Amino acid sequence: MKLKDFSNWLDKLLDPKSFKDYCVDGLCIEANDQVTKVVTGVSFRDRLIDAAIEEKADCILVHHPNGFWKNEDRIPVGHYGERLRRMFQNGISLYGYHLPLDGHMDIGNNALIAKAMGLSVVDGFMFEGEKPVAVIAEFDTCVSKEEFLACAEKAFEHGVQNALLYGSNQIHRVAICSGSGASGIEEALDLGCDAFITGEIKEAVPITCEELKFNLIHCGHHRTEIFGVRALADKIQNELHIPAKFVDLDNPI
Amino acid sequence: MKLKDFSNWLDKLLDPKSFKDYCVDGLCIEANDQVTKVVTGVSFRDRLIDAAIEEKADCILVHHPNGFWKNEDRIPVGHYGERLRRMFQNGISLYGYHLPLDGHMDIGNNALIAKAMGLSVVDGFMFEGEKPVAVIAEFDTCVSKEEFLACAEKAFEHGVQNALLYGSNQIHRVAICSGSGASGIEEALDLGCDAFITGEIKEAVPITCEELKFNLIHCGHHRTEIFGVRALADKIQNELHIPAKFVDLDNPI
Amino acid sequence: MKLKDFSNWLDKLLDPKSFKDYCVDGLCIEANDQVTKVVTGVSFRDRLIDAAIEEKADCILVHHPNGFWKNEDRIPVGHYGERLRRMFQNGISLYGYHLPLDGHMDIGNNALIAKAMGLSVVDGFMFEGEKPVAVIAEFDTCVSKEEFLACAEKAFEHGVQNALLYGSNQIHRVAICSGSGASGIEEALDLGCDAFITGEIKEAVPITCEELKFNLIHCGHHRTEIFGVRALADKIQNELHIPAKFVDLDNPI
Amino acid sequence: MKLKDFSNWLDKLLDPKSFKDYCVDGLCIEANDQVTKVVTGVSFRDRLIDAAIEEKADCILVHHPNGFWKNEDRIPVGHYGERLRRMFQNGISLYGYHLPLDGHMDIGNNALIAKAMGLSVVDGFMFEGEKPVAVIAEFDTCVSKEEFLACAEKAFEHGVQNALLYGSNQIHRVAICSGSGASGIEEALDLGCDAFITGEIKEAVPITCEELKFNLIHCGHHRTEIFGVRALADKIQNELHIPAKFVDLDNPI
Amino acid sequence: MKLKDFSNWLDKLLDPKSFKDYCVDGLCIEANDQVTKVVTGVSFRDRLIDAAIEEKADCILVHHPNGFWKNEDRIPVGHYGERLRRMFQNGISLYGYHLPLDGHMDIGNNALIAKAMGLSVVDGFMFEGEKPVAVIAEFDTCVSKEEFLACAEKAFEHGVQNALLYGSNQIHRVAICSGSGASGIEEALDLGCDAFITGEIKEAVPITCEELKFNLIHCGHHRTEIFGVRALADKIQNELHIPAKFVDLDNPI
Amino acid sequence: MKLKDFSNWLDKLLDPKSFKDYCVDGLCIEANDQVTKVVTGVSFRDRLIDAAIEEKADCILVHHPNGFWKNEDRIPVGHYGERLRRMFQNGISLYGYHLPLDGHMDIGNNALIAKAMGLSVVDGFMFEGEKPVAVIAEFDTCVSKEEFLACAEKAFEHGVQNALLYGSNQIHRVAICSGSGASGIEEALDLGCDAFITGEIKEAVPITCEELKFNLIHCGHHRTEIFGVRALADKIQNELHIPAKFVDLDNPI
Repeated sequence: MKLKDFSNWLDKLLDPKSFKDYCVDGLCIEANDQVTKVVTGVSFRDRLIDAAIEEKADCILVHHPNGFWKNEDRIPVGHYGERLRRMFQNGISLYGYHLPLDGHMDIGNNALIAKAMGLSVVDGFMFEGEKPVAVIAEFDTCVSKEEFLACAEKAFEHGVQNALLYGSNQIHRVAICSGSGASGIEEALDLGCDAFITGEIKEAVPITCEELKFNLIHCGHHRTEIFGVRALADKIQNELHIPAKFVDLDNPI
Repeated sequence: MKLKDFSNWLDKLLDPKSFKDYCVDGLCIEANDQVTKVVTGVSFRDRLIDAAIEEKADCILVHHPNGFWKNEDRIPVGHYGERLRRMFQNGISLYGYHLPLDGHMDIGNNALIAKAMGLSVVDGFMFEGEKPVAVIAEFDTCVSKEEFLACAEKAFEHGVQNALLYGSNQIHRVAICSGSGASGIEEALDLGCDAFITGEIKEAVPITCEELKFNLIHCGHHRTEIFGVRALADKIQNELHIPAKFVDLDNPI
Repeated sequence: MKLKDFSNWLDKLLDPKSFKDYCVDGLCIEANDQVTKVVTGVSFRDRLIDAAIEEKADCILVHHPNGFWKNEDRIPVGHYGERLRRMFQNGISLYGYHLPLDGHMDIGNNALIAKAMGLSVVDGFMFEGEKPVAVIAEFDTCVSKEEFLACAEKAFEHGVQNALLYGSNQIHRVAICSGSGASGIEEALDLGCDAFITGEIKEAVPITCEELKFNLIHCGHHRTEIFGVRALADKIQNELHIPAKFVDLDNPI
Repeated sequence: MKLKDFSNWLDKLLDPKSFKDYCVDGLCIEANDQVTKVVTGVSFRDRLIDAAIEEKADCILVHHPNGFWKNEDRIPVGHYGERLRRMFQNGISLYGYHLPLDGHMDIGNNALIAKAMGLSVVDGFMFEGEKPVAVIAEFDTCVSKEEFLACAEKAFEHGVQNALLYGSNQIHRVAICSGSGASGIEEALDLGCDAFITGEIKEAVPITCEELKFNLIHCGHHRTEIFGVRALADKIQNELHIPAKFVDLDNPI
Repeated sequence: MKLKDFSNWLDKLLDPKSFKDYCVDGLCIEANDQVTKVVTGVSFRDRLIDAAIEEKADCILVHHPNGFWKNEDRIPVGHYGERLRRMFQNGISLYGYHLPLDGHMDIGNNALIAKAMGLSVVDGFMFEGEKPVAVIAEFDTCVSKEEFLACAEKAFEHGVQNALLYGSNQIHRVAICSGSGASGIEEALDLGCDAFITGEIKEAVPITCEELKFNLIHCGHHRTEIFGVRALADKIQNELHIPAKFVDLDNPI
Repeated sequence: MKLKDFSNWLDKLLDPKSFKDYCVDGLCIEANDQVTKVVTGVSFRDRLIDAAIEEKADCILVHHPNGFWKNEDRIPVGHYGERLRRMFQNGISLYGYHLPLDGHMDIGNNALIAKAMGLSVVDGFMFEGEKPVAVIAEFDTCVSKEEFLACAEKAFEHGVQNALLYGSNQIHRVAICSGSGASGIEEALDLGCDAFITGEIKEAVPITCEELKFNLIHCGHHRTEIFGVRALADKIQNELHIPAKFVDLDNPI
């Protein structure tokens, strides 16, 4: 497939223009005019380039396009220059989709976490630009804290990192924001949520949960963000018939 | 002791004017003109106020003066208003010392972590204003990764949260920055360090350590910051003869 | 009455969201969950707290919420801390309404000055946000400068501070902006006004009036702003049946 | 005298480069290459141009160079254009000296007010740039509030506008800042002053004086600023032998 | 004609409010209340004032209102003061119209260049505010590079300064932006243009044209901007019956 | 030679840290760890990459590092991506030195223009950071305008583009600023210069020269900036014994 056509297909699917993001969303490195094999991963890093070379892929697609965040200098020297050199010498292009892969209602991280938890998405929240990046989802019936934790242990391969269950024991409505999403706690409370699922939290968050009497679990920044890029690899393979493979390079954070 | 005299003693000891901080360093709430009993803790929070009331303290001193960070509105309504109300009604003043309690060469978090690890401080780094907030410290001889981890497991009651040991197996020179200090990795490498100890890290840090071939462990934001406020309670009691007690409200982050 | 209900009643009446103000408009200090007696005044100050304590009030409402202007630090120490301490220890909450109490078409300072002068309000001007803070008002017939001054001497208990009557002797249409409102002179001229009433002026204003051949009187910043808070005390008493008293602590400026 | 030489004489005397001012300090309108007769006044205004024309002056020197403040547009149309037209058509240049004429230790407003009050200047304060704009001055012995007021009534032709005498009855050390100078109150208190003299104050100042227990009088913005330009006219006449006349166009503010 | 009426006629014709310009558009110097004779020119300069004086004009109208660009200080001293002095002493007002005289679809520089080249304007582009400043124009049939150059040599009295003809030899659709307009190259390419006409270019432009394979000629900043002010002189004379003369003070740039 | 050593040699020679520049000064693209053959040119462009490939060079050094100016995005896609791809695939690194190659007192553009004109450099001016980018140079004796022009026609292969000789006919002291340097005219006049040599000028410059009665010639932006990169190629070859070749891709601007 031509790179240009692949770009158009991705932009149509993920609609980056509707998000106010702080990185490039779309083509980051154009090193080839064709796309014949795709590797997806959470973060752009040396071992993902190794994997792409090994797979003879000519395209990498990531959720965290390291090197392409706002305010990065992008002078191709040193370690960043070395990454670019390997991409160009191996003819591998790079795509990054950040917030669009969190908020997508079908293949976004949060919608897929909801599905894995047995929740039904009912709404979006935490707008960045014109679209929400996080979801509100509901259980069919109220579940207890124990049942809630059990769902999470099942949904996340590596389990729950911390369970801060200071809220109600009747959990029905759950806010989900993958990555570092706890800034949405107050909005979630206003929206009537009983619990919050996120990836990575800061020191103040356990205190906030305790004092606001709220339930929150976090399961790892990386580990809450494998859902979108994994589903996108499947979608590329199924719909475009381009071989595509999600490569999981686990990260404890 | 008069509050004014206590303020002067603290400012002379901790020298907040030399640091460029992003919170109030010093007196945050003036609710009493005397200091007769002090409670110290890592973070200002409801349960620390409970503890102070129970201890009949008239002064709280913390490392994280929540409510007194730059850009906070400080309108005394809602949860923040409730905290102020309890402080004023119980006549309890609040002091916050943030970066000065990280960087102090005697009772700062980093100097005390070095001591607990069996390291000797040789220098400061990561300047914020005129003074450094982190330390460089050295073992008497090189230690292996295993020995390094063993020291850390001993120094921190709750142990090491993640060990990202991608660097040399000869560890002699160690950078220490409590809390969320990994932004100092490149400076530490430039200064010839073999390893880094910090509290809390973000998702990009394991990738950086792997690609720069560096050793880093993190042991919790809170848990690396109990050292300073604990030592300060002792110092207040010993030098000023004011009863002072460190209250540890553990935080997994 | 519950504080929350009182807040809602005030916000509905005064509509602070329509104004672009440079202070808090609404609840400033939440020191009680009930409102059983209200004291109103122009400016938040120690003697108004004395009055509230004496009146056994649990709520103060002011036009100038000192301590709650934009860019104030609000660290509760020193004089500001002492004010907060007294409010919390006596269980007295504070409300501030600034521009909404200038521009309200019924109980705002400017509408009430118009009424006291024998003028009929015909329009608003000097928009701050979506609503005007000042009014245009007309006499039934043209009045002379002498008659205009006589109306003002009657409307303001302490009289006119300076009469800069460089304009027409036929005064029909009058701009009114309480406080420090002379920045509206050019807009008032464009709108066909013959005279301007305000509170406090700067050194350049007499020169401007002379050179633009305009009539302006000023009657004191404080003294043009007792109208709104006085009327609001009456309205609270009459409509909510909560005892409410306007306390006038005169200010020559 | 050549305009260039006159400019040099003024700049050497008043040293505008040492002040951080918010208007032009120096030549504002160059309409003549000679200076043969000078008119001085507090503020640049139409009637001062009238006076200069009547006096056949070719130079006006003011303390308030209206039209030459920072952020003014200076498009020579309308009223400002008309002023420029008259200056150019009558060959009258304009000089403005603002802060340098407040802070000058010999012919500045504040030093001269001190002299008129029977005070001896001991120091400067309220630095703007490298030099102070206000002075600290002392009586030979302590005076009572009544004696202090009596001195002021004598020093200022139009007397005291408001006397806010909430401080000590033993007045020895006095801060003086002409114009709108009350922002210096806290600095004056820190410097041990017993009273403050200024020109124009805002609504919050009487409250501040009362609550900080301080003595302050204000005597008019204009009326505290006639001293410098009046003395400068004398100095020009005496030292340069250029006819120079201070024209007082009184302003109640 | 009264100046005020002339201003209104110009503003109605040229609609400056629709453009986001970086200079005054409209009356710049008001030195006369009448307009009886007009001189137009590209740039405000001493020799244009000479010409106006010689022509006994009381109004100058220019495309480049030097002295009235954003961020100019406009202190009327030195060379700028001398220009103002001459304007006021000779009673000559100044108008500037910058972007409105580039983009006007009838008497703007770009529309008139199109006409002189034998092109028909089909659209505007390069919006500044609500209106475009440049035009897209088309030949009836495709022309070769040679024919294109021949048209330009005919349309511009002083010919083409540089012909950077790296594009197609079939030229049908041409972008025109007078002055320094090459920043519009990429927009012109997106809009399907085969060539670009502008006035003045920077060092990078020949490289851009070569690498993007585009045709561009530039004919001088001044020389592409005589069209509008020349046509406006005619229009003033014909429609308002005020004598008006375009004075061409050639400029090689 | 190792790239790192070559970088050090260049930085020592050209001292980029002393200049406040608006592009990268130093290594821009690191595509090889060795330097065995160098191509220099004025501007980074496709044809210079062609030349480097043809010369089998592994290093390009330019004065204008296009792609590496401040505020450029540097997303390696499209035309910029294509340039990077060719550099990486051919193992060619890029260095840019901008202001340091204008201001160097031995091999800078301006010092070399002085030498070619028969002038002796006496000083630097137009500081950007700690160092000047332009030079003041003097003839042994005064020359006439004709002689001055003759020197310039000899010094610049393509001659003088415009001679704006409105100043004195006695030319002794000459300011030289290659590229687009006319913003230094007023500083040059203050420094007593009789003439100015630069590369590229804007429309206002001929008017300024005429009105300030100054002599200025400009000889092309590119053409005044071949001196430094040409001399640097020679110096690299002579001192480091690395083959180095200046490639002149002429540019009329």
